[in-house]
Amino acid sequence: MSLRVAEHLETQLDAIIDRLGQYVACASVSADPAFEHGMQAARDFLIARLGEIGMENIQLLDGGGHKAVYADWLHAPGKPTLIVYGHYDVQPPDPLNAWETDPFVLTRKGDRLYARGASDNKGSSTIAIESLAAYLAIEGGFPFNVRCLFEGEEEVGAVTLPAIFERYRDLLQGDLVLSADGGRNGFWPAINVGCRGVNAMEVTLKTSAVRDLHSGRYGGTTRNALHDMARLLSSLHDNDGRVIVDGFLPETSLPSAEARRHVAELGMDEEAFFASFGGASHGYPDYSAIERLMLMPTLEINGMWGGYTGPGSKTVIPNTAHAKITIRLVPGQDPKETAATVARHLEAHAPAGTSIEITSDRGGAPAYNLAEDSPLVIAADRVLREVTGETPVRVRSGGTSPITSTIRQELGIDTLMFGFSLPADGVHAPNESYAIESIREGIRCWPLMLTELGRVWAAK
Amino acid sequence: MSLRVAEHLETQLDAIIDRLGQYVACASVSADPAFEHGMQAARDFLIARLGEIGMENIQLLDGGGHKAVYADWLHAPGKPTLIVYGHYDVQPPDPLNAWETDPFVLTRKGDRLYARGASDNKGSSTIAIESLAAYLAIEGGFPFNVRCLFEGEEEVGAVTLPAIFERYRDLLQGDLVLSADGGRNGFWPAINVGCRGVNAMEVTLKTSAVRDLHSGRYGGTTRNALHDMARLLSSLHDNDGRVIVDGFLPETSLPSAEARRHVAELGMDEEAFFASFGGASHGYPDYSAIERLMLMPTLEINGMWGGYTGPGSKTVIPNTAHAKITIRLVPGQDPKETAATVARHLEAHAPAGTSIEITSDRGGAPAYNLAEDSPLVIAADRVLREVTGETPVRVRSGGTSPITSTIRQELGIDTLMFGFSLPADGVHAPNESYAIESIREGIRCWPLMLTELGRVWAAK
Repeated sequence: MSLRVAEHLETQLDAIIDRLGQYVACASVSADPAFEHGMQAARDFLIARLGEIGMENIQLLDGGGHKAVYADWLHAPGKPTLIVYGHYDVQPPDPLNAWETDPFVLTRKGDRLYARGASDNKGSSTIAIESLAAYLAIEGGFPFNVRCLFEGEEEVGAVTLPAIFERYRDLLQGDLVLSADGGRNGFWPAINVGCRGVNAMEVTLKTSAVRDLHSGRYGGTTRNALHDMARLLSSLHDNDGRVIVDGFLPETSLPSAEARRHVAELGMDEEAFFASFGGASHGYPDYSAIERLMLMPTLEINGMWGGYTGPGSKTVIPNTAHAKITIRLVPGQDPKETAATVARHLEAHAPAGTSIEITSDRGGAPAYNLAEDSPLVIAADRVLREVTGETPVRVRSGGTSPITSTIRQELGIDTLMFGFSLPADGVHAPNESYAIESIREGIRCWPLMLTELGRVWAAK
Repeated sequence: MSLRVAEHLETQLDAIIDRLGQYVACASVSADPAFEHGMQAARDFLIARLGEIGMENIQLLDGGGHKAVYADWLHAPGKPTLIVYGHYDVQPPDPLNAWETDPFVLTRKGDRLYARGASDNKGSSTIAIESLAAYLAIEGGFPFNVRCLFEGEEEVGAVTLPAIFERYRDLLQGDLVLSADGGRNGFWPAINVGCRGVNAMEVTLKTSAVRDLHSGRYGGTTRNALHDMARLLSSLHDNDGRVIVDGFLPETSLPSAEARRHVAELGMDEEAFFASFGGASHGYPDYSAIERLMLMPTLEINGMWGGYTGPGSKTVIPNTAHAKITIRLVPGQDPKETAATVARHLEAHAPAGTSIEITSDRGGAPAYNLAEDSPLVIAADRVLREVTGETPVRVRSGGTSPITSTIRQELGIDTLMFGFSLPADGVHAPNESYAIESIREGIRCWPLMLTELGRVWAAK
């Protein structure tokens, strides 16, 4: 494995940190229109840097929201195309008074760099860009075509990204995506081979009573929407925490022996996991906590409310109750179909004399799965073995990475999350930071990843 | 049965309505300090009128809140003492713009009189006072001793009434209470022989997690307070609506055959009852709706809340959930003990890994029951048969009349609610009114009630 590019990058560490400092100084908070100047500055920074390193055809992609920055290098005709993904927007810095340093000034303390975006995603994006730079500088070109896409709406739900994929379909043709986003959630060396999907719904239950009733005048004679909602919500799980909605979890979506073996290899310390937040273990009893998190779906009531919730007491019999529900999905569970299955359960279990209204505020995202024989997995496995001397474990996120689902849906191709964030970085929180060691690891792994991916593709 | 007093009163109807007009002109809203002048005016009105009619020893009783007006006539040594109860305070007139006439000007339209307090309780109190007046004028005295108590805090929970009973124990000695408050809730002729008690509690359930959790990072591994609260609340009732809390309803508190017969005699039209508010019949299946309302307890969840209740969705696993509960009680269910029984059930059914905190914001009030052989019931039965030519039914209120419980607790004696309000009066609402026919019926029944009560007492 050629280490020339990585070794060159190692000598450039101070310059790389300087450039990360320029990048985080662009206060690119996508959620707050007051930061539009910072969004503009971040786009300008990317355009300038991508031009400097030799990327071409640089332009803004406009999906109707914050524009994305595009660049490409297409000098490998007949070869596959890799799309490198990152995002230039950051979370708001609030609460400002909790910051020990200026959130938009990269500040080194010991072996860490502090700033909003230092880790998510400017730190990891910098690794990607500097790796491309060094690769072009040292090798003179890539073993395949490369397109870069740095979007500006990741922290606000990437709302116009599908429109960008739609409008710029020709520019965004590619075979695989390597994402600078994502992180190493406590396991290393590790390959992110998937994540759970998600869907959300809101349920309103109404009795047939035309108004709330006084318990002195009606109590005992008629239905109470809160009793009925409590009973309805209780019908979703058994005492052990299994979801008992018919058809919710098809037999074919149960975790494979291989997936369970991968999870077992993580060797998670369950005791330490539960101790970290004080929670009790609860859920599908035939699976370990880490299996439940990574390989099994979950159905959570996120909110419920109804009746009188102010001070003191009120003898009201409410005629309406509400609940918010989200589901986390595993491969084989279609977000819309699974939500419809839950909706049918709720409708079937609502007692006579009540009516149910169910709304869903988004279409949801399916679970994402990277096959063991994906060139991305094969290449990442080789790189991480080489760099760490250990066998990389396979990890799945219990959360949802809508970007991987969106890309698969819009472009029909696979994505590997190959960011270098760590849980200790405190992304989204005040005093976000990035370990200098993470940059070192990143600039070692990314060039090797480009090389290995070229080899895997060439061998096909 | 001597009708002399009632016949005299009939000739005084116009003068009585005039005096009711003076009384409602005193804007005695106890809830709002801006109406203190009206409270004062109402007390002055009562003091003047009670003096005019020959009551003695007139004074204000100060329990630390709005003062009560007291008067007595104690010229029947060796005879029992009747306490006549009423209240001079009224509900606020809000919303003012919903009134078609000035709420503090008694306005006659057709056969009804409109004003705040026209019915509750100045109308029915006027019947009581005018009956005492005519009795003294025509008969020269009562066949027993009489004490009058008109309090000024009924609409704000009679908070200092126990203090008044405590401080003026000697003045408030008596054998029975005849209350000018209460009304005829759709049944006539009827005797109010009781009401349900009440108690309230608030339940907070917490999982052991030290904070709310993200379902992507923890979903499926641990407890969700909303799931546990829904399950806990569901454990309070069975599918048919029976309360299934061990020890909640002792065998001895089940309705007697006599009580059930009395309720059956009401001949309530259940279909019309449910049609009036659109509700479905639900509750203890071995009892009719009216039995469930009058003779059976109820346990109602009045509010429940937890987690995210704003717009859109949030993938939170809440560690805390809340519910408000009230219970309506039948005779034999002690308010505190029954609440403790429910609390024990909740504590016993809360799953491992959760904790329960239960608070109660008031001590509650027990159910109230007037025995069939009470002199009040015997006398009222005779009066109503005489006046209406029909057999009076026995009704129980599904609500709670704390005054009857307070009087039994503080003075150890029974109360008959003998007011003449009707559901159509719209008490507490804008455009409250009182039927002139209700005054006619009242001034016919009250003097006869005094006479008959004297006879029943004399015969003992």
